[in-house]
Parts: sequence; structure tokens; C-alpha cells
Amino acid sequence: MDFAFDERTTELRERLLAFMDECVYPAEETFQRQAAESGWSPPPLLAGLKEEARRRGLWNLFLPGEHGAGLTNLQYAPLAEIMGRSPGIAPAATNCAAPDTGNMELLAEFGSEWQRRTWLAPLLAGEIRSAFAMTEPDVASSDATNIATSIVRDGDFYVINGRKWYASGAMNPGCAVFIVMGRTSQDGDPHRRQSMVLVPRDTPGLTVRRGMRVFGYTDADHGGHAELLLEDVRVPLDHVIGEEGGGFAIAQARLGPGRIHHCMRLIGMAERAIELMCARALSRTAFGEPLARQGVVREWIAEARVTVEQLRLLVLKTAWLMDTAGNRGAHTEIQAIKIATPRAVETILDRAIQLHGAGGVGQDFPLAGLWAAARALRLADGPDEVHKRSLARRELKKHMSAGS
Amino acid sequence: MDFAFDERTTELRERLLAFMDECVYPAEETFQRQAAESGWSPPPLLAGLKEEARRRGLWNLFLPGEHGAGLTNLQYAPLAEIMGRSPGIAPAATNCAAPDTGNMELLAEFGSEWQRRTWLAPLLAGEIRSAFAMTEPDVASSDATNIATSIVRDGDFYVINGRKWYASGAMNPGCAVFIVMGRTSQDGDPHRRQSMVLVPRDTPGLTVRRGMRVFGYTDADHGGHAELLLEDVRVPLDHVIGEEGGGFAIAQARLGPGRIHHCMRLIGMAERAIELMCARALSRTAFGEPLARQGVVREWIAEARVTVEQLRLLVLKTAWLMDTAGNRGAHTEIQAIKIATPRAVETILDRAIQLHGAGGVGQDFPLAGLWAAARALRLADGPDEVHKRSLARRELKKHMSAGS
Amino acid sequence: MDFAFDERTTELRERLLAFMDECVYPAEETFQRQAAESGWSPPPLLAGLKEEARRRGLWNLFLPGEHGAGLTNLQYAPLAEIMGRSPGIAPAATNCAAPDTGNMELLAEFGSEWQRRTWLAPLLAGEIRSAFAMTEPDVASSDATNIATSIVRDGDFYVINGRKWYASGAMNPGCAVFIVMGRTSQDGDPHRRQSMVLVPRDTPGLTVRRGMRVFGYTDADHGGHAELLLEDVRVPLDHVIGEEGGGFAIAQARLGPGRIHHCMRLIGMAERAIELMCARALSRTAFGEPLARQGVVREWIAEARVTVEQLRLLVLKTAWLMDTAGNRGAHTEIQAIKIATPRAVETILDRAIQLHGAGGVGQDFPLAGLWAAARALRLADGPDEVHKRSLARRELKKHMSAGS
Amino acid sequence: MDFAFDERTTELRERLLAFMDECVYPAEETFQRQAAESGWSPPPLLAGLKEEARRRGLWNLFLPGEHGAGLTNLQYAPLAEIMGRSPGIAPAATNCAAPDTGNMELLAEFGSEWQRRTWLAPLLAGEIRSAFAMTEPDVASSDATNIATSIVRDGDFYVINGRKWYASGAMNPGCAVFIVMGRTSQDGDPHRRQSMVLVPRDTPGLTVRRGMRVFGYTDADHGGHAELLLEDVRVPLDHVIGEEGGGFAIAQARLGPGRIHHCMRLIGMAERAIELMCARALSRTAFGEPLARQGVVREWIAEARVTVEQLRLLVLKTAWLMDTAGNRGAHTEIQAIKIATPRAVETILDRAIQLHGAGGVGQDFPLAGLWAAARALRLADGPDEVHKRSLARRELKKHMSAGS
Repeated sequence: MDFAFDERTTELRERLLAFMDECVYPAEETFQRQAAESGWSPPPLLAGLKEEARRRGLWNLFLPGEHGAGLTNLQYAPLAEIMGRSPGIAPAATNCAAPDTGNMELLAEFGSEWQRRTWLAPLLAGEIRSAFAMTEPDVASSDATNIATSIVRDGDFYVINGRKWYASGAMNPGCAVFIVMGRTSQDGDPHRRQSMVLVPRDTPGLTVRRGMRVFGYTDADHGGHAELLLEDVRVPLDHVIGEEGGGFAIAQARLGPGRIHHCMRLIGMAERAIELMCARALSRTAFGEPLARQGVVREWIAEARVTVEQLRLLVLKTAWLMDTAGNRGAHTEIQAIKIATPRAVETILDRAIQLHGAGGVGQDFPLAGLWAAARALRLADGPDEVHKRSLARRELKKHMSAGS
Repeated sequence: MDFAFDERTTELRERLLAFMDECVYPAEETFQRQAAESGWSPPPLLAGLKEEARRRGLWNLFLPGEHGAGLTNLQYAPLAEIMGRSPGIAPAATNCAAPDTGNMELLAEFGSEWQRRTWLAPLLAGEIRSAFAMTEPDVASSDATNIATSIVRDGDFYVINGRKWYASGAMNPGCAVFIVMGRTSQDGDPHRRQSMVLVPRDTPGLTVRRGMRVFGYTDADHGGHAELLLEDVRVPLDHVIGEEGGGFAIAQARLGPGRIHHCMRLIGMAERAIELMCARALSRTAFGEPLARQGVVREWIAEARVTVEQLRLLVLKTAWLMDTAGNRGAHTEIQAIKIATPRAVETILDRAIQLHGAGGVGQDFPLAGLWAAARALRLADGPDEVHKRSLARRELKKHMSAGS
Repeated sequence: MDFAFDERTTELRERLLAFMDECVYPAEETFQRQAAESGWSPPPLLAGLKEEARRRGLWNLFLPGEHGAGLTNLQYAPLAEIMGRSPGIAPAATNCAAPDTGNMELLAEFGSEWQRRTWLAPLLAGEIRSAFAMTEPDVASSDATNIATSIVRDGDFYVINGRKWYASGAMNPGCAVFIVMGRTSQDGDPHRRQSMVLVPRDTPGLTVRRGMRVFGYTDADHGGHAELLLEDVRVPLDHVIGEEGGGFAIAQARLGPGRIHHCMRLIGMAERAIELMCARALSRTAFGEPLARQGVVREWIAEARVTVEQLRLLVLKTAWLMDTAGNRGAHTEIQAIKIATPRAVETILDRAIQLHGAGGVGQDFPLAGLWAAARALRLADGPDEVHKRSLARRELKKHMSAGS
Repeated sequence: MDFAFDERTTELRERLLAFMDECVYPAEETFQRQAAESGWSPPPLLAGLKEEARRRGLWNLFLPGEHGAGLTNLQYAPLAEIMGRSPGIAPAATNCAAPDTGNMELLAEFGSEWQRRTWLAPLLAGEIRSAFAMTEPDVASSDATNIATSIVRDGDFYVINGRKWYASGAMNPGCAVFIVMGRTSQDGDPHRRQSMVLVPRDTPGLTVRRGMRVFGYTDADHGGHAELLLEDVRVPLDHVIGEEGGGFAIAQARLGPGRIHHCMRLIGMAERAIELMCARALSRTAFGEPLARQGVVREWIAEARVTVEQLRLLVLKTAWLMDTAGNRGAHTEIQAIKIATPRAVETILDRAIQLHGAGGVGQDFPLAGLWAAARALRLADGPDEVHKRSLARRELKKHMSAGS
């Protein structure tokens, strides 16, 4: 057992930290201002940052294997944390932003030669964006067997009908392709009925209806969250990813690394919140005493630190398990980090907000926005409750077989 | 001791409930749509609702004494709860919306004959709106002695300089007057240094700079929350409310009823959330079981009910104490409801959101918006922590004198 | 609506408070010492206190109707709170201690003429004690339909077989009779299968096996909690209370007032804890500052006050509902107080313990003992979770019929 | 970074697990019965277990360096967890029980040749026990500068006067020596005023007054917690440990490993609780459904698992830091585990108790006793609040120097 970073991680952390200090933080204010004016398009300064990141060898770090930087999950995780300190800019600048990351992984692992050439290549180059359309407004989508969008074969085509929402990134005009999850079969094994198909943005029958909000935010700088209407949308059969009926399995495979990324970015957000909390506590005085000397404020800071240390270790261990025992061997841990991280970071952000007074809920500090992002992650990929339910079943099973 | 409503309350509750059923709930969807298009102005349909409320004798119910409906706090409180079920519409339609309510109370109690004629009369008639400017971005404003805006006498005028933000209602173009809190003195008793002055919207030197956000929301349907710049703003001496140096005392007097209103509306919001939670739980199925039969969902519903029953009683008792023992006699209770209510209702709303999945955080359900309102009330009138600190001091004092 | 005590309550509160000050608190230390030496028997000084309480007209206050003091639930509740401040002495001294109170209520309401003469009379006179045997070690007894003890008719007798535990009060040698709940029928309506029978202590076949502990405490001063073995215990048919098959209904009827008593005593315990907390905070210094000035301590005191005010109102309202709408009309509230009170008081006690350092967990302060009592009440009459489950079902039903 | 155990740890874990399965668990019932009858002496069967443990090479595992097994903190920590699964037996059987462990470390590191020969040797051999007397009833002892016991030089002797309590282990008649912390100086650096002296049990003037309780428990199987009176107790000058004035520094050094041990044993207790919870949930049925299928029960099990995984990693990392960066370099983490672990394990135990119904609070399951042990650890070595305060100060300092 050893808790030190390896050499490559150490080197990349330093390089990334320098990029944050030299390029990302100084750009935040302008980014914010441009974002307010650029509608659903990314702020103009992003292009320059992408170029710079690429130049510095900070590009596609998330992607293992030959197509990407080739890092292990354990090596990439600490980098994702650093990116999370400025989550509107850093992931996008380094081509490590969701949902593209998950989509690229999926195309790298399950995509056909043609699919990789057509979609993976420009994604890896940062030339296009993509979206993932799974959640539906009309069913409890955390139970994948509820998915109602139909994908029906008709000759050489699939015909898709359904309604999706909270397809993140899809409002960005640069989002060129959607990965759509739907049912290709009504019977047989309930986990072999779903398939994933690629739907180019300009396919007839596909309507991007509106941007969904998250606590009042449009999240335009992340490409928003679209409601999609699919009416007799036709795509050729070779647009299915992997094989027909493989949708559920692919979705599962996609989840593991995504959770690591999300959770590490959340930890980065929490570290940012602690910094802001300390800075505020050291600079404000109320009732004759600096906030930094008030017991309740100290309690919050201490709790935040204690929480973050635990979360980080759990996520890193999960990354290590994924690297050494595979997605399946890390199943419990992948659920555990999804349960533990968003809510804990939400609490830290909530207290940071409280410490900032009215300003905390507004647009002059990043806290309220970060809070909304953390809150939404308690629902993304299924509400925490679904994961707890499943984790408990697994724990109970362990004790059944143990005969206790 | 008796927990039944008196006759007048019972009659008014029924009348108000009928108004909600017949006029308010049916208008919600249109209101929402108009709000999205009307910028900082109130949705057009509000005017008709105001007329109707007035016709039904549901007007200025909040105001005790001759100028208003003459209800006690205990009689009005259950009506505020009902209004809170549709907080964007009902309070405004009945001329019972903050911050006008507090401003009208203040003018009714401390305003001069001239001030009442000029500002109170049109406010009571629902012809104009008003705002209250206390919080400042640069100081911990919950400690009123920190307030930095200066109000300096210059001959027959006061000259005001300072910066305020989160002046609720001030973005509404119909907001004709601001009550501004500032320092008229640099020495003497620290609680006699502040004064309140009336500043008409069109006074030179007053700039409404921008609308502040609350978790991404503009709160435009409530008139937003303005940042104000006051640069050498001059108002005649008769624009001071009460007497010079009386600002702190007036602010204190203003707080009591305001807290009752806020807290009862929050309870109405919580009841709405419970309704939505039950409806959702009864209509959705996940993993083969309706949500309504799942243990964790039941836990949430039970907890919500147990919480709301306690909160309501505490707020009603506080109203009763204010009626029978005065603002001062109810001091501890007024702090207690401010501490207990927003956070508890926030938790109920959070769970209702969780139960609604992705939809919960978006614009198709009122939950995320209500949540943001509840969250902001943990900061409005000073963060909870300030109130706990003061309440504890009082409790400790009690035990000191008891000799224990 | 009116939150003031009526005249009779006010008068009795004063009389009881005087008794506490003059007789109970001064006796606490000696009581504690005697208790440590008197085994399962009550400390000798109790007899004198009982006499004195009776002389002062503070006797059987809990019992409505002709047999007792004739108070309503709402009138008795505030008296129970006061007794709860010294829960080892005051309830026993005034003949208002559980489980006798519930047993007397039950005999007064459902007992035959003969049962009342034989058992109720000496209980009312404080000459004997009694116990209630419901919980069984082998089944989830909160679900009464699980009760396995069998009560089988055999000619003029019932023959009882089973095992019970946590029969509170039964270790006291003065405990002369047990009310035993068992199954008289294996079929028919599952809520008509149970009956309650009176079993005198000296009945052959009844063995009091051992005293059960509560977090290491024997609770000997309350008569302990016995494990009972019933082996072919025979009692005449007239020992059934009410009618055969009526056990479940009687148990339900017994619950309402018992919960009011328990909850109000808990509130009295919480008030005692707040007093101790304040006294400690005012007298100790750490790190150069009296505890009373430390933010976290203030937070605890404030939270305790805010919590207690809410709980008390909820319990009082429940008492009022029981008086005006009956046990059935107060069903939800009776569940709500059982859910809300023990855990909240437990938290207050826990913080009071923390403030007392090592002493808090030991025998020199009453806090750890009170804590254990509060903790046990989260399980008594069924765990909180059972009540939440049922309360939620009721809430959901309300919304089903409302058509939402 | 690597999360796998090294070879030696793996081997020792297996050996220890076998010892638990073959010797410890089978002895639990008898141990419990003997403990109830052996007063303050250890249950007779302990001697045989000690012999067996020693024979299996499971002896003094906690002690690094030449005197003990020579394991690093990181190697010993997982073994302490396993021992914590049966905390009344396993640590004592392997000579790894507090407070001897801390006392042995201290003598090994700071003791003179003579002290090591006289006291360390028989402790290492498991022939005697020892106690550590720091806490005083009359002052907030978590602030070491408050310690009031005086140690005054008088010729060749120290004369000690004071009162101590909660000296764990001291009620055991085999406890042959006490390490007493007191003040040797009234002025100078406040952290150089304390010294530690060895006081043999039979020294005149030393009275072991009584056993303190922990929530009703005597903890006799751990040697209880004594109140000590020291009246003109005289010991030769060579009984001081390290140097005069070094008490505070030695106390600090003693804390680090002790916290690791306590926290890992707590984690073992939590694992035991999870096992019991699962076993109970799988074997009980209420309201027509096994507890294992009820949502709230699953929630508890999942939360317990998620919590334990995080805690374990944090403690292991702290052990690693102590091994690689020293006690001082691990300061924040040592505080963090003390804050995070006891309370979290307390919650897990509380839920396990709740799941066991009345049995949970009693003596037939180990849960209530384990709970009391966990609860007491929130106070041992100073209440959590003291550690949070200090941890926050350190965090704030970090940000001051960072200039943010």
C-alpha cells in the first residue's frame, strides 16, 4: 500500500497546475462575461485555450489506450480533480469535458472502424461536440428497462421515435451527433432489449426543442441540456453502436470512468469552495470578530477538510480497482463514490454560500453555480437512492453466502 | 389553550381557498409563460387577478389597524400559508407581497402624514411597488452596525452615498420608491446611528445597475433583486422615516411580522411540495414497484409531514405572542422560526426534487424555483447563524440570573 | 386559537413546581445512593415522597374520569413535562409512572367490576405496581400480528405459553400483576386474534428470568425490564380484559395517552439538559474562553431551544386533538410525536453529554442515564420506522382521494 | 499509488483471522458469562487465549522497533481492525490493548533503562497491566494547560497531589503502575509545565476510589475507568518519564499511534455491526416482508458500507503518512480520523441497534456495548470539537500564507 503519486502523475499534475495558473484562472472573468453574451455557443476565448492546452500536451488525458493519452484511471483521476477547480473552462479546454469523454470512450471501445473514423476522430481533435440522450421525461429512466423510445428496424434503416430530455451538451450548435438509447426489442432478457444508435444532428425528424434548466441556470457554457423530439427519425443500420441489444451493457461500461471523472471534478470544486471559504473568513468581520475566529465557521472548514480527504481516497481507490480488477470488480466502489461525493460536495458548497451572505447565491461568486452542478449530479445516472438500493442488495448477498 | 381557528380566520381561509382554486392555480401556467416574456415587468394577467382579489375582499389582509384588513398576526398567518402555495401569484394578487408588506407596515406605523399620503396610499391601492435597500456587498450587513452607506445632512437635504444589492422588487419598473438604510452618524450609541430615508426612483444619482441572481433565477416575477448605486443622491429632510437615528429600531419592528409572513408562506410551499411528492410517488414505477410503496419515499413523506406540523405550530404561537406580548415579548420565538423554517422547508423541497428526477431541477415543475427561494431565506435578514448566536446568548442569560 | 394555559393547569403547574423544588430535587442525591444499594426494590425514601405528593393533591393526575384527577390530556401534559425533569422520582412519587399509568387507564376503561376492585383499586392507591408484557424476543413485535405467545382456552381457564422480554417494571418485587398480550385465535381478522389477560405474579408456570439491560443500565429504580417465561400458566377466564379478541384494539387505545406522557416527560428531560448545558457552559473555560462564548456551544444551545419549542407545541396539540377528536382523530399526530420527540431529545442529551466531557458519560451527572431512556423510546411501542411507514401511507391516501 | 496490502500484512491478516475464527469468536459467550462474575478481574479464560496468541506469533504486534513485532503503522492498522471485531477479547489476548499499548510505546521511546527494565519488560510479557491518568474532573482537560494536579520536587522525591478520573484500566487488580500527568511548573512556556511520572499502584497516598461508568457499563473487562485520589504521593525523581517539563510533548507523541489503533478497531466494530445488521435483516419479517427487502433497511446497510470504505482509507493513509512523514507531518490527518471515525461508527451501531429492536439495547447482542465504547471515543483525547477547532486553524493558516 502506497499513497504517493507515481512519476507520470506527478509530472502531469505540475504541468496542468501551471496551465490553470497561467491560462485558466486568469480567463475566468472574461469567460463569464463572454458566456453571458454568446447564447448557446461556447465563449470565443475557449478556442485559444484549447490550442494552448494541446500545445502543452494536456489533451485527451482522460482517454486510455492508443487513441488518447494512455493514462490509467488512477493516473487521470488527480488531473480531473484539478480541472474541477474551474469546471466551466478547464475540462473543455483540455478536451476532457463530459459528455464527450464518455462518448469517445464508447466509440473507442465499441465503435466500428467507420464510426471511429467519422465521429471519434473529429471528437478527439476537438472539432465537434456530441451528446448522449438517455433520460426520458415520461418514465423513471434510472431503471433502464423503463426506457420507452423505440428503435425499429425497417429494411436498411432504424426508425426512432421518442422523447428525451436533459441531453447535456446538445444545445451547443457545435454538437454534431447524438448517441440515442432506445428499445430495439419488446421481449427476451430485459437487459438485452436496448440499443444505442448514432443520430447526426441534421437527421430529419430530430427536433432540439428547448434547453432545460438546472435551478435557473441554462448551463449554456456546457452546451445546455436539451429536450429532443424524435419523430420517425431514420438512420442506416450501421449507426448502431456495438450490436443490437447491447445498449444496456455499453451504458454500464460507460458509467465507471464517467463517475471517476465527475467525482474527482467535484472534489476539485470542493477544494475551490474551501479556498473561497477561507479567504472570506479571513477578510470579513461581524460582531467584532473576524469570521475566521468564529466557532461555527471553523467547524465548517474543518468538516469540509475531513470530508474531502475521505472522498478523494475513496475515488482514487475506485480508480485503482478499475485499473486492476476491471469495471465489474469495482462495482460496489463505483456506486459508493456516486452516492458519497455529490451530496458531500453539495454540503461544502452550501456552507461556502452561507459564509458569503447574499453574494453566495448570486452571480459574482462561482458558488451557487457549482452548487447547482453538484446537486444535479445527485440525479444524473440515476438518483442516489437507486444506487444505495443496489449496493445494499450486494452487501446482503455477501452475508447470505457467508451463511451468517 | 385551544388549537382551533377563530371564526373570522375560518371564513377568510375558505374565501381565500376558493380564490386559489378558481383563479390562482388555473392561472399558473399562463403566468409562467407570460413571465418568461415580460422581462422585469409583471405578467399582464396579474392586473386582472388583483382586481378579482380586491372584489372578493382579499386585499391588504396582512395589514393590521385601520389602514388594512385589521387582522391580528394570528389571524393573518394561516392566510399567508395558503398564499405560499402559489408564491409567485397569490401574494402579489392580494397586495400581500414582500417587500411592500413590510414597507407599508413601516409607513403606517412610523410614516408622517405626508409620507403616508404620498407613498402608503398608492401602495395600499396596489398602484405602485416599493423596495427596501439594506444589504451591502462590501460588509457583513447582518450586523447593522456595519452598514456603510452614508446619509449626510446638507442644509435642507440628505445626501446619500453607497452601494446596495439584493434590494428585492427594485427591478420592477413599477417600483416607485426605495426605502434606504444608511448611517446618519459616526458616533454615539451604535444602534442609534442608522436612519431610513425614502428615495423616489427617479432621484438623480440613483442608478439601478443590474439584477442580481438567486441560483440562476432572476426572480423577475417578484421584481428581481437590484444592485443600486447611490452617488450624491439628494432627498429633502422630510424623507426620513420616523426620526433620524431611528433606523435600527424601525428595522427591528419591521422584522417580526415579516418573519411570520415568510415562514407561513414557506409552510405553504412545503405543503405544495408534499402534494407534488405524493402525486409523483403514486404515478411513477421503478424496479417493479410504485414509488409510493418504496420505503425511502415513505420515509421522506412522513418526515415532511412531521416537520411541517411542528413548524406551523411554532409560527402560529409566535404570531399569538406578538399579538399578546408584543414584538419584544416574542423575540426568542421570532428568531426561532427564522432559524427553523427555511432550512426545514428546503429539505422537504430537496426531497421532492429528488423524487422528480431530472425534472425536479428544471422549469417544468415549480420545485427548483421554490427551493431557491427557501435557500435564499436562510440568508435574508441575516444568516441563521447570527440568529442562533443571539438566541443562545439570551438562553444563557436566563440561566445566569437563575443562578444555576 | 390560544396558547395560554387554562386556570386549572396553571394552578396545578405551580403546585407541582413547588413539590419539585421542595421535595424532589433535594431528594435526588439520596435517591441515587439508595438506588445503588436497594437492588430491584425502590429506594426507601420513595414512600415518604408518595405520601407527601398525595397530601398536596398531586396524585393520579394522569387519569381522566372519576377514578383519577379528572384532567384532560391537554391539562395533564404540561404536568408530565415537569415530572420529566426528574424522571426517576417525580412520576413514581405522584403515582403517575409508566407502565402503571397505561395499565390503570386500561383497567378503568375496559376492566370488569371485579378486575377494577382487585387490581385497579390498589394501583390507584399506590400499594402495588404492575407490568405490561407485550414484546417478544423471537418476533418483530411492532407488528402485533406477529405476537406468538399462545392463550388457549381449556375449560374455565386460559393456558398461556410463551416468552416475553422488556416487560418494564416487572423486576420490582412490588409488581403484583402482569398484563399479558397473546394470541387466542389462529385465524379470522388478523387484528381480532389477540387478547390481554391478567396474570398475578405468583401464578405457577410464570418465571421472571432476569432483568434486561438498557445500555448497561438495569433501570432498577423503574423496576427494571424483565424477561418472562410462561409455561402452561393457567388463569381463570374472567382474567381476560375486555373481551377475547379485543387485545389489539385495547393496545391501540392504550397507546395514545402513553405517548403524550412519554413525550412530555422527554421534553422535561430536554429542559433539564438545557439547564445543565448552560450551567456547564457558564462555569468552564477552555482555550482561554468560557465555553458559553464559544460558537459551537451556542449553536447547540440555540438548536436545543428551537427544537424543544416545536416539540412541545406538537405534543400539546396532539393532547388537544385527543380531547376534542378522540384517539382516532389524533392518529397522525400521535404517530408524529412518537417519531419526532425521542430522537430530538436524544440529540439534545448527546450534546449536553459532549459538553460535560468524560463526566457526561458517567454516573455523576444524570445525562447518560437520560440519554439511554430517550434512546430506548425510539424502540418502545415499535421502532420509529414503523410509525413513519404508517404515517406516510395515510398521507398518500389523502392525496389519492384528493385525485391528485 | 497502490491499494494492495504488502506480503507481511497479508500473511499476518490471515494468521490473525484464523485466530479469531478458531479461538476468539468461539470464546465470546463464555467470556461474557465469566466477565459478569469476575468483578474487576479479567475473565479466567483470557490467560489461555494470551498463551495461544503468543504461540501463534500474534503478540505485541502494535509495537514498532526492536521491543515489539516491528511492524509499521500501515502494517499494523489492518490487524487492529480485525481485533476490533471482538474488542473485549482480541486486543487483550494479543497484548495489544489500550492503554497498555500507548504506555509501552512511551516507555520504549522515552523511558530510562531502569524504567524499561522495571515496567516495560513485564508489560511486554503481558504479566502486568498499566493505566494512564490524565483527565481531571475539575477542569477542561482537553486543554492540557488546564491540568491542575501538582507534582512538586521535595529533595529526592516528587510529591503529587490531585484528582484524576477515567483512568482506563486502573480498576483491574493486575494494573501495577500508573502514568500520571501533572504540573511541575507554574510558569514559563505553557507547554513545558507538565511532566509524566510513574506511580506504582501501592504507593502510599494513592487511592483508587471507584469505577466510573460509561452509559451504565463498568467496562470491567477492560479494567474499568478509575477515579484516583493522589494525596502527598511521593515517588523518587527517577520516576519521571523523559525529562521534567516534557509531559506535553510525550502526550502528543503518544496520541498518533493510539488514534490509528482506536480508529481501526472502531472500523472493525463497524464491520461486525454490518454483519449483524445483514444477518438480522435476512432473518426477520415484519409487515409481510423480510427486513432485508425494506427500503430503509437497505438504505442503512448501503450507508454503512459507503462510510466504512471511506474511513478505512483515511486511517490507512494516516498510518502511511506517520510512517513516511512522521507524527508531525500527519498532524491534520491524525485529527481528521479522530473527528470522523467515532461518530460515524456510532451512527452505524445506532442503526444496527434499531434493527435489532429491544434486543439491540440489551445484553444479548454486543451492539449497545460497542455503541457506548464508540460514543466515549468522541470524548477521549479531547472532544471532537477541540480537534475541529485546531484543524480549521491550520487550514486557515494555509490560505493566509497562500495570500488568498
